[in-house]
Amino acid sequence: MNHAAALPGCAYLDGEFVPIHEAKISILDWGFLHSDATYDVAHVWQGAFFRLDDHLDRFEASLAHLRLDPGMPRQGLRQVMHECVRRSGLRDAYVEVLCTRGRPAPGSRDPRTCANKLMAFAIPFVWIADPDKQRRGVDLHVSDIQRIPAASVDPRVKNYHWLDFVMGLFQAYDAGRETCVLVDAHGHVTEGPGFNVFAVVDGAVVTPQAGVLEGISRRTVLELARAEGLAVREAPLPVEDLRRAQEVFLSSTGGGVIPIARVDGQAVGGRPAGEFGPIAQRLQAAYWALHRDPRHVEPIDY
Amino acid sequence: MNHAAALPGCAYLDGEFVPIHEAKISILDWGFLHSDATYDVAHVWQGAFFRLDDHLDRFEASLAHLRLDPGMPRQGLRQVMHECVRRSGLRDAYVEVLCTRGRPAPGSRDPRTCANKLMAFAIPFVWIADPDKQRRGVDLHVSDIQRIPAASVDPRVKNYHWLDFVMGLFQAYDAGRETCVLVDAHGHVTEGPGFNVFAVVDGAVVTPQAGVLEGISRRTVLELARAEGLAVREAPLPVEDLRRAQEVFLSSTGGGVIPIARVDGQAVGGRPAGEFGPIAQRLQAAYWALHRDPRHVEPIDY
Repeated sequence: MNHAAALPGCAYLDGEFVPIHEAKISILDWGFLHSDATYDVAHVWQGAFFRLDDHLDRFEASLAHLRLDPGMPRQGLRQVMHECVRRSGLRDAYVEVLCTRGRPAPGSRDPRTCANKLMAFAIPFVWIADPDKQRRGVDLHVSDIQRIPAASVDPRVKNYHWLDFVMGLFQAYDAGRETCVLVDAHGHVTEGPGFNVFAVVDGAVVTPQAGVLEGISRRTVLELARAEGLAVREAPLPVEDLRRAQEVFLSSTGGGVIPIARVDGQAVGGRPAGEFGPIAQRLQAAYWALHRDPRHVEPIDY
Repeated sequence: MNHAAALPGCAYLDGEFVPIHEAKISILDWGFLHSDATYDVAHVWQGAFFRLDDHLDRFEASLAHLRLDPGMPRQGLRQVMHECVRRSGLRDAYVEVLCTRGRPAPGSRDPRTCANKLMAFAIPFVWIADPDKQRRGVDLHVSDIQRIPAASVDPRVKNYHWLDFVMGLFQAYDAGRETCVLVDAHGHVTEGPGFNVFAVVDGAVVTPQAGVLEGISRRTVLELARAEGLAVREAPLPVEDLRRAQEVFLSSTGGGVIPIARVDGQAVGGRPAGEFGPIAQRLQAAYWALHRDPRHVEPIDY
């Protein structure tokens, strides 16, 4: 099966821009063999980046934490991402920038001997749940798998360690559901594959405060909720609270605010299929309205 | 810096054998972007594989756990690994076989839509500590970073989630040491980057029983120690026991039994530099002697 030929997109690596299906990395790069890499994903919507600076802030913090050197300053990273989108011609795009450890000196196991490698690519926008699924609402499985804890790998450093999510997804599919959320060692909700989780509990909007990626979409939702005058708490979210919540939704660069219809097969807030709570609806509308706010958008010069 | 040109070796991917410097994978393969892959590493010593069947047993168990399909039976995997070594011409080699999730259908985030990809490569033997460093003895740093727990990712399924090790290595370098061992949430010793740990405590050979890869070299050491009539325990290994141990050594496909000279700067067993305990020495000799045992070796047909 060769999906590559079907997919438009442009990548940057080894200092060159290439069609996405030609973008390949050495099998010996520790970004692959040790998942020793960090990345960030911004989205382009209707021809403009959304909150690109916030993504670049986080990417640079991740690089510093892992002692990775992308070999170019902020402005260069920005230009590379813009150029990937421009060359791809995509109006709605998923744009990833990443840096791998690279390859060690022959025979060495010392990461300090590696020349780090910066890469980026733009491909068509990837939805966490496509618009049709969003209308139906997502069916969420609460997995007993624990998200890799911060004591092992800091989840705020965006990373490719996803086997906990992958196994959670298979659990969800086995249970006839669409995606999953993982817990922590205390049985509290953490995050899902590519998204943060929000619940409306006793009238307050609650999202886990620790053990999760500090998503840019999560931040957007928190800002919008506060601007709307809603009670907002970044706090532990026990699974029981998720189950009794009036509303549950996720936030992701891959689609903004997306309502959860069912948690482990139970209708959230007792609502009929396809009906969602007022807070998720307001925040979803506000999220997309923000894509017209010049403080947050940065047009591509196609 | 292009290390590729300097390195001999042969790889197998997309059904073909290629020189190692031509072996590249798509930047979009989830084996890279989600570290959704498993692998195993066997070594070839003086022209023969050591315990290849044990490595293939473990690789097949890892594949099943992650629901990955390499697209060929055991005998095919064996032939691919043999052929990588044969074509490389290497007499002492590090031979990795791996399977990635592959790429999803365009727009999908469902791993079930991926065509999994089998790869393998043979490169020159990579020592955890080269013979010169082995003569001096390794300087081990005990990190406070916790190895990714089994509740998140089963460590018996050999995987590329190494950022905990990478950060532990940087801690070790900052402290002027050579490698590291990580702990678990109880402060017990787990494993290091590419090796299991053994300590001789109150006359018994102890190695952690949980939260670690069940290394083939670890198994070899356990078998040899029992055959020598030593007291052997697979049990929790508190850091305090590591510090007061009469001997400490590691086991790895990358060098067998390798003595640790210092733990956090303190000489193990109070021994002078370059002197090692009798148990590590006996097991090291027995480990290499086993490389002449026809039950465990499988010659390459160069």
